[in-house]
Amino acid sequence: MEAESTSVAPSGLQATDASTIAERYHTVRSFTETLCDPLETEDYVVQTKENVSPTKWHLAHTSWFFETFLLKPHLDGYEPLDEQYAYLFNSYYIQAGERHCRDRRGYISRPTVAEVYAFRTYVDEHMDRLLADAERRRELAPLVEIGVHHEQQHQELMVTDIKHVFSVNPLRPAYRDLAPSSRIELPELAWTAFDEGIYEVGYEGDGFHFDNEGPRHKTYLQPFALANRLVTNGEFIAFIEDDGYRRPELWLSEGWATVQERDWTEPFYWEKHDGQWYLYTLGGMREVNPSEPACHITYFEADAFARWAGARLPEEKEWEVAARDRPMQGNFVDEGRYHPAPLHEGADPDQLYQMYGDVWEWTRSAYSPYPGYEPLPGAIGEYNGKFMCGQFVLRGGSCATSRSHIRPTYRNFFYPDEAWQFMGFRLARDV
Amino acid sequence: MEAESTSVAPSGLQATDASTIAERYHTVRSFTETLCDPLETEDYVVQTKENVSPTKWHLAHTSWFFETFLLKPHLDGYEPLDEQYAYLFNSYYIQAGERHCRDRRGYISRPTVAEVYAFRTYVDEHMDRLLADAERRRELAPLVEIGVHHEQQHQELMVTDIKHVFSVNPLRPAYRDLAPSSRIELPELAWTAFDEGIYEVGYEGDGFHFDNEGPRHKTYLQPFALANRLVTNGEFIAFIEDDGYRRPELWLSEGWATVQERDWTEPFYWEKHDGQWYLYTLGGMREVNPSEPACHITYFEADAFARWAGARLPEEKEWEVAARDRPMQGNFVDEGRYHPAPLHEGADPDQLYQMYGDVWEWTRSAYSPYPGYEPLPGAIGEYNGKFMCGQFVLRGGSCATSRSHIRPTYRNFFYPDEAWQFMGFRLARDV
Amino acid sequence: MEAESTSVAPSGLQATDASTIAERYHTVRSFTETLCDPLETEDYVVQTKENVSPTKWHLAHTSWFFETFLLKPHLDGYEPLDEQYAYLFNSYYIQAGERHCRDRRGYISRPTVAEVYAFRTYVDEHMDRLLADAERRRELAPLVEIGVHHEQQHQELMVTDIKHVFSVNPLRPAYRDLAPSSRIELPELAWTAFDEGIYEVGYEGDGFHFDNEGPRHKTYLQPFALANRLVTNGEFIAFIEDDGYRRPELWLSEGWATVQERDWTEPFYWEKHDGQWYLYTLGGMREVNPSEPACHITYFEADAFARWAGARLPEEKEWEVAARDRPMQGNFVDEGRYHPAPLHEGADPDQLYQMYGDVWEWTRSAYSPYPGYEPLPGAIGEYNGKFMCGQFVLRGGSCATSRSHIRPTYRNFFYPDEAWQFMGFRLARDV
Amino acid sequence: MEAESTSVAPSGLQATDASTIAERYHTVRSFTETLCDPLETEDYVVQTKENVSPTKWHLAHTSWFFETFLLKPHLDGYEPLDEQYAYLFNSYYIQAGERHCRDRRGYISRPTVAEVYAFRTYVDEHMDRLLADAERRRELAPLVEIGVHHEQQHQELMVTDIKHVFSVNPLRPAYRDLAPSSRIELPELAWTAFDEGIYEVGYEGDGFHFDNEGPRHKTYLQPFALANRLVTNGEFIAFIEDDGYRRPELWLSEGWATVQERDWTEPFYWEKHDGQWYLYTLGGMREVNPSEPACHITYFEADAFARWAGARLPEEKEWEVAARDRPMQGNFVDEGRYHPAPLHEGADPDQLYQMYGDVWEWTRSAYSPYPGYEPLPGAIGEYNGKFMCGQFVLRGGSCATSRSHIRPTYRNFFYPDEAWQFMGFRLARDV
Repeated sequence: MEAESTSVAPSGLQATDASTIAERYHTVRSFTETLCDPLETEDYVVQTKENVSPTKWHLAHTSWFFETFLLKPHLDGYEPLDEQYAYLFNSYYIQAGERHCRDRRGYISRPTVAEVYAFRTYVDEHMDRLLADAERRRELAPLVEIGVHHEQQHQELMVTDIKHVFSVNPLRPAYRDLAPSSRIELPELAWTAFDEGIYEVGYEGDGFHFDNEGPRHKTYLQPFALANRLVTNGEFIAFIEDDGYRRPELWLSEGWATVQERDWTEPFYWEKHDGQWYLYTLGGMREVNPSEPACHITYFEADAFARWAGARLPEEKEWEVAARDRPMQGNFVDEGRYHPAPLHEGADPDQLYQMYGDVWEWTRSAYSPYPGYEPLPGAIGEYNGKFMCGQFVLRGGSCATSRSHIRPTYRNFFYPDEAWQFMGFRLARDV
Repeated sequence: MEAESTSVAPSGLQATDASTIAERYHTVRSFTETLCDPLETEDYVVQTKENVSPTKWHLAHTSWFFETFLLKPHLDGYEPLDEQYAYLFNSYYIQAGERHCRDRRGYISRPTVAEVYAFRTYVDEHMDRLLADAERRRELAPLVEIGVHHEQQHQELMVTDIKHVFSVNPLRPAYRDLAPSSRIELPELAWTAFDEGIYEVGYEGDGFHFDNEGPRHKTYLQPFALANRLVTNGEFIAFIEDDGYRRPELWLSEGWATVQERDWTEPFYWEKHDGQWYLYTLGGMREVNPSEPACHITYFEADAFARWAGARLPEEKEWEVAARDRPMQGNFVDEGRYHPAPLHEGADPDQLYQMYGDVWEWTRSAYSPYPGYEPLPGAIGEYNGKFMCGQFVLRGGSCATSRSHIRPTYRNFFYPDEAWQFMGFRLARDV
Repeated sequence: MEAESTSVAPSGLQATDASTIAERYHTVRSFTETLCDPLETEDYVVQTKENVSPTKWHLAHTSWFFETFLLKPHLDGYEPLDEQYAYLFNSYYIQAGERHCRDRRGYISRPTVAEVYAFRTYVDEHMDRLLADAERRRELAPLVEIGVHHEQQHQELMVTDIKHVFSVNPLRPAYRDLAPSSRIELPELAWTAFDEGIYEVGYEGDGFHFDNEGPRHKTYLQPFALANRLVTNGEFIAFIEDDGYRRPELWLSEGWATVQERDWTEPFYWEKHDGQWYLYTLGGMREVNPSEPACHITYFEADAFARWAGARLPEEKEWEVAARDRPMQGNFVDEGRYHPAPLHEGADPDQLYQMYGDVWEWTRSAYSPYPGYEPLPGAIGEYNGKFMCGQFVLRGGSCATSRSHIRPTYRNFFYPDEAWQFMGFRLARDV
Repeated sequence: MEAESTSVAPSGLQATDASTIAERYHTVRSFTETLCDPLETEDYVVQTKENVSPTKWHLAHTSWFFETFLLKPHLDGYEPLDEQYAYLFNSYYIQAGERHCRDRRGYISRPTVAEVYAFRTYVDEHMDRLLADAERRRELAPLVEIGVHHEQQHQELMVTDIKHVFSVNPLRPAYRDLAPSSRIELPELAWTAFDEGIYEVGYEGDGFHFDNEGPRHKTYLQPFALANRLVTNGEFIAFIEDDGYRRPELWLSEGWATVQERDWTEPFYWEKHDGQWYLYTLGGMREVNPSEPACHITYFEADAFARWAGARLPEEKEWEVAARDRPMQGNFVDEGRYHPAPLHEGADPDQLYQMYGDVWEWTRSAYSPYPGYEPLPGAIGEYNGKFMCGQFVLRGGSCATSRSHIRPTYRNFFYPDEAWQFMGFRLARDV
């Protein structure tokens, strides 16, 4: 997802258990604040590039969402805490009114962090009032569910944004005290093959999902194989050492132009000192562990690596077909690692590992509408569709994603030069 | 195609009739010079934006191509006319050596136009020598064929580039004396439906084609319908008058940002004076004829128009399936109109018109590799693949394309904000 | 002064009363913190353009100055509180080592505000220790005096920078509760004439002054006259209403280019609503009072206004000759108005008013070295001289300047397109 | 002068001998075309940066000047050859109407070179008609004189602009066949001292001069000394070898920022190959001759060199006082060398050499109005004054200046980062 590319168009939400929606609301809202536990007041204010938002803004924007789409239209007599918040904390919902410039969120010292927490409390109290009645609860559950997923998306952004903020600070503060992973001996890459034929892809069922995951439709896949695990730091170092960043024939034309313009010589967050690679993690600076999945890799780099390796990136449909029968397990934010983890030793070469969690996996599929795709009308239906240009799809969630937020059909998307999310990749090949 | 995104990787060229290849070479080379007939020496020199090249450069670069890929490797004892031309006239073939900056081609006054013509003659004479022997001719026919198609691509660029050069000159010179088209009464748009099912798409056969057109493969299409003709200027004026350029909900997010940043309020080459729309054509400034196909339309505008019209743009596969049984007829550069033409009166509503020629048709398909796609190795195999990022596919050729250059499977591609090619669109919808 | 163009090269400091230097140190250091009284923690962090620094940075940088130039070289056994502060809080003293990028000061959340205050305390305690001994005090008094003046310069920047930070916040917070000024009836502008002849200008004496104020030297002035007061808002509105911003003949060539590029139609901090002019002040948004001096005026605007008025801006030498016999009185930061004030009613037309305080007065003198000018060697001698290019001199101090900081010979300097300081102007003319 | 910063406001022109004005007109007009002798048609069209104009434009603009200020207002019944030329060939005379963008002059292929020459002939014929009558001749002589000087300024620009155009062409064409200068043994630098006191500077007399050279006025100079010759390439190499480009303490703050941003490591037009310095000249690439005056040096470099050498640049008034008694001799464009020349051997150490011709000499004086300066009203009075911001004064003319164009009081001016003119410098120091 683009920083605010939240998809919020549910197609079928009847499965949401209305009796538990209030509980789910509080769980998620509370987790947002838990993520802020390690922060000082100053940390909430800073914006270090256009698509990094201040934590304060995330806290307020997610509350604005409930105010705008639940409280204002549905709670009789609701009075906003501050009329100007609607302007300050709208992200890009054009139909929801004017909004403050995205690249100037870091210019705003007021409202203070304390005032923003007061705004959260204000919204929560009014949400409680709104959801007190069982009838309203049933009726509004789908909208609340959207808000909850929206907030989970921003939780992930809070983690990745604060990582960026801390990383550009010469003091390199750590977000939390985190144990480094161990080095293990990984077995050779193995491949799992899939047959040619007609497959159905896209969301099907009664649960919550975003509009861009549907409609479910038939597609024809040629025979293909997927690597059984993610590409690792160790493998990426081999690419670097084989002059990967200096060989134009490995790169997309735009990728090569970017390499030259920005002087890329290694992945984002990496540094070399005295012949040793280091990377910034939410636990501080660390030696690069070769057995960890490569992370903060752009599409351009993943694509160049795959060409170098004589392979390619998967299509998103291939990934979905391969992933959907795997158990929804992995290194999610719920684990509290805040960093991708090496595959455990002794992995079975015939299985696909690390499909969920750890890092979002780049696919070579441009982010486009499925056949028959229709966004919902109105501001709540803004917008997955409006981002369908120039971005690539990523799948599977990361170590900053909530387990309860992800699905096999979930389509995340970013521009090919972006790296500040927990992004990595898995190889594919034609059979 | 991107200005120099020439695809030059043939997969099967045995069909080229070796006995006629020399003739075809001369026909195409000669047409390049015919296109220059109306130009003054000064017109050859000017570059008005990064992806507009001086005509002089096109003349030299197409000759450089034959020198580099035919004469140097295959003609014994060949001596280049000038060693530095290899540097000056390489476009982006990285494996063919260093090259002069693309955005500075307009800084180069020498070699003069006369010297560039002498270079062409020099290359032609040596090509004659190379192709004099029947055995060599047979053997090299595929490579010559590539050079010929490459030159045809640059012919199209010469037409569109000189149009740009003349258009920014306040004197607004005309390229040729061209008759304006008549206004006719167009019938209502009609739709042709296609069934759901498995289709095969991509090039199949023995003829020349670019590597990105293959391999032929199965795909599954949902039911769809295509409009029977191109969107017209008159229809586009209705979009403008309905505030099309002022309604963000009609646009892709990046499209809307572009509209605001560049103050777009009408298509490229259009101007309004005293309530009347005018556009620059290769015959000079003209009143907008509402029955002509809308031209010089960006993807962003085409996409917004389609949303406004309650339709969408076609997938490239849909277009190919619909077009491949139509006769290869249309308003090509061979007609000498240098401008899209209105549909003739009395068109049959059950037929698809204007599929070839007039304007390249935007599809909503991002330019991506077909399953199993492999570029050929080496510089001659640069590069369709390396442009597979951020661009959209266009189909069908234009009034600046040679009839002998186009195929139903031909995939052109440009960025969504580009308009200086003869680009338009046709609507599609789900059934 | 450019934001960090602090001049720190004293030529004669023996007059500093060593017995009071410690007291003066504490008075000034304490006033810095008084200026922060109205701020929330979040307000200290924000940087809204390259030459606006976060308040936190000012607090730390002024302490870094004492640490670098007093404590490290002169206090035996001094240990810095944090080694990295030297990197983070150096501004541009190249000879004092590497430093953090100026345009990224707003990216730094740590050290926290509390930690920065702790750093101040740490430095103050060690300064006390250093100055405890009367001998050291006498010896170091000149250096301390520099640090004190340096801190006063940053006090002024703190006021102007926080004004900018608050002004771009849509909530438009007020810095303090400030009473608006009254509208009064100003008498017509009167002129005071000065004779032609040789004058001496530049600093002379034993007191503190910056190196760029000397050496004192002879100069020849042609006869001239100065307006008896500053140009007012009311007069500037007349310029606007006479199409001042739309008449290129009134502007310097670069000024006119700037007007067009940035769409200037009124002074910085001004807005028009329903036909009424408003401006942002440190007390919040206010109606423009026509009798106040025009403020936040660029050189380009002042120069254009002067041309429109048939006058010109003064030479800096003219200003100095006229000002030096006037009493050092005016609306300084000591008054606590934080805004320029109207001239009192009943002013004597034969006197020069508002020469000190209210607004820095633009002169038409490019900022250049005086004959015989020599900067002191070493980092402490950085740098007035290195800014002598492209800037214009301003004189007299403003409502954000400390009375104890200013002198008749004081030369401030800024680029001609800058307006965020309290800048205004007075007219001059040839006689 | 800025590329089109032509000063055209004469204050006293009665000295122009009206009987010879027509002859002078033809001599100068003809020399313009002589300068074009070596050019091909293509060379006239190219613009390689914003302030380099195509030769074609210079040819047309100088004719436009006579058309606009002489023919249209003074020749009864004059009909312009083409109404649109007024728009195309106005440079920056805002009061003379709208004009084509300066940075797009290289986009204009039409009118052709032949048409521009026809325009010149057309203007010349009508000028002959206008000046046929002795009475008109007398009356208009001052205006014609302005046009002639204006054309001489553009002659200089033609030489420097075509040098730039050829230099960026990888073929590096030579403008003419020029003999390289010999290496000679230069004597040590000697200094000529001048006394403190009141001096008068600025133009005085009846001859032609620009408005910015007056009024003549008294000024007070401190004692100073000037170097007896220009700084040489050999001396500049010593600066480079002493790490001149890597020592920030030698540079103005803006100069250092420019060095870093543009990666300056040697003067403009210089290159190093295999340990040997080369420079581009109008005769092609040459080894650097250490005895030639350093040329194409920016103000920033000259200022840094002077600081490194323990000296400074002269004030413009110092230069004028020193130069005005020297004979007006030197290496002007009339010599046909098109390159600065070494001082002859055996020069007298007590004399000042190379004050005129060779290279324009940077002074440390910002370009500012003299006391009492008044530009003339109207478009013809545009504009020396409007460029009085951010530029520095240069004196003495260069090897591209006509001898009949220069005066001791002549003030040229450029921005401190510009080098494409023939610019060098001479050292000065306080005594």
